[in-house]
Amino acid sequence: MYIQTISHYLPGKVVPNSYFTELNGLTDDWIRERTGIRERRRTEAGENTHTMAIEAIKAGLPHLPYPVSEIGLVVAATYTPYDTVSTLAHAVQNFIDVADIPAVSLSSACSSLLNGLEVAEGYFAMGKADKALVVVSDNNSAYSDDHDKVAGHLWGDGSAAFFLSKERVTDQDIEIQEIITAGAATVGRNIEGVTLRPNHGGLHMAYGKDVFMNACVYMEEVSRRILKKHGYGPEDVSYFAPHQANYRISRQVLRNMEVPEERLLSNIEVLGNTGSAGCGIALSQNRHRFQTGDLLLMAVFGGGYSYGAMLMKA
Amino acid sequence: MYIQTISHYLPGKVVPNSYFTELNGLTDDWIRERTGIRERRRTEAGENTHTMAIEAIKAGLPHLPYPVSEIGLVVAATYTPYDTVSTLAHAVQNFIDVADIPAVSLSSACSSLLNGLEVAEGYFAMGKADKALVVVSDNNSAYSDDHDKVAGHLWGDGSAAFFLSKERVTDQDIEIQEIITAGAATVGRNIEGVTLRPNHGGLHMAYGKDVFMNACVYMEEVSRRILKKHGYGPEDVSYFAPHQANYRISRQVLRNMEVPEERLLSNIEVLGNTGSAGCGIALSQNRHRFQTGDLLLMAVFGGGYSYGAMLMKA
Repeated sequence: MYIQTISHYLPGKVVPNSYFTELNGLTDDWIRERTGIRERRRTEAGENTHTMAIEAIKAGLPHLPYPVSEIGLVVAATYTPYDTVSTLAHAVQNFIDVADIPAVSLSSACSSLLNGLEVAEGYFAMGKADKALVVVSDNNSAYSDDHDKVAGHLWGDGSAAFFLSKERVTDQDIEIQEIITAGAATVGRNIEGVTLRPNHGGLHMAYGKDVFMNACVYMEEVSRRILKKHGYGPEDVSYFAPHQANYRISRQVLRNMEVPEERLLSNIEVLGNTGSAGCGIALSQNRHRFQTGDLLLMAVFGGGYSYGAMLMKA
Repeated sequence: MYIQTISHYLPGKVVPNSYFTELNGLTDDWIRERTGIRERRRTEAGENTHTMAIEAIKAGLPHLPYPVSEIGLVVAATYTPYDTVSTLAHAVQNFIDVADIPAVSLSSACSSLLNGLEVAEGYFAMGKADKALVVVSDNNSAYSDDHDKVAGHLWGDGSAAFFLSKERVTDQDIEIQEIITAGAATVGRNIEGVTLRPNHGGLHMAYGKDVFMNACVYMEEVSRRILKKHGYGPEDVSYFAPHQANYRISRQVLRNMEVPEERLLSNIEVLGNTGSAGCGIALSQNRHRFQTGDLLLMAVFGGGYSYGAMLMKA
């Protein structure tokens, strides 16, 4: 499976830590020390999960090496749905105006991007598509509570779009060598750790320490496993794009794996936790740095719990 | 792909048409004439999308011809999520207590069951699983508005569970010969026809006539297409399980295809529109009637728009 084009969108509104100092008494130092976050982007009136995804697609279309009409599948990943019936995938299909192709929206919390890419891989394996558009869009601020002193300051909004093919299309394609995903709903606080109940208070992180600990354990374990399976070690990783949940989690995974800090792709400082979109946005933001042959690793962990890794070669 | 076990769950609370007569002045005759619905089942306090799915699984487990620990994938279909982070798939993984298997929740509106089964087919094709549990659970009453005179009386709640394998396990397995799914977000009122915006008023059907018309057109077209592809005609269908949206839609599709009415599997009279669960429940309720060699056809249409068909052999 190959990636031709990655693009992203960030809403224009910037929310600095000082907003949460005024609201909840949490200082800039306190937030930065615990999370690495300085500011985050957020949607404004008229923006939502769908509009953000469409903006990410618009940013990618000029760079697509084939007509968008060749797309044979839409997979949309989000845990912050704007509409669960006329879903994100349908909004995307409507925008690209390609009739009668499979369109499905999914959530596996902050692991959703990898699940979305893996579902596309499944359609390729069945021979039901050979080109796909996978979008990831999370509008956390639509469901989070700014007065929540535990987690209200973590959340940002953003989206990314991946144009994929079963076979290589250009020399610049990024090859996806393998995707691993799994639920971890049998360990720790699992289905209670992070929740987003639309009818029962929205987005909450009831067991932040348990999430933090399991994120570190699982992201390291699945990273080592996917590397080993392909004959690599952590020292071979050119760039590492972990789920952008908390800078301390990213740093700890990096240190445990002894990957140098300059290989980390991080945007949490200025975007906050953009959910399942975060590491997709990081890949899009840094694509110009990748050289042919670079080994790229993505690792995710999210509510549910859920986790996964993706190994790529530029 | 083969189905070993199908099971379902219906909540105990019965809501008759007289409830909507009192509330909105809609008479029993008026509702029955336009929809075929006499009564519907609804969740009560403490029940939700997750609890319903787990009850459906409990009903199936005693009939499963292998240990549940052999399940290698959970796919959960719902457009009425209880939790979009600790999703339905995670709740199911937690219940069956099988660690480190892919778990993903998805929505393609009322087509979600077929998309869920197709995603499982993709994991089988990739060799990433050989047994799967696909659940479908819709708790419409959590998002619908009983005071909505246009559609409030349509909605019921329910769930079904499908235990599947890549290869045949028993002589009683139902063979899935093919699944077709697609978005139809480029025709008619598409992304405006039916909507469920958790933060913007819940479940609404703004363009009921457009939905009705397109449901009839697409369910017939995709049914004829999937039959023809396998060398069958409508006359070969032993049982037809359409999406249970409206008895008039089911009857019109049936008449246009010239399939005798006694081959229709219908539960809308006593369950209402149970969303993506409806035709799964119908298959479960009628499985005892299927004889070896019977040709079973499922066809769906839903918001987005979205549609699909599944051809099975008992």
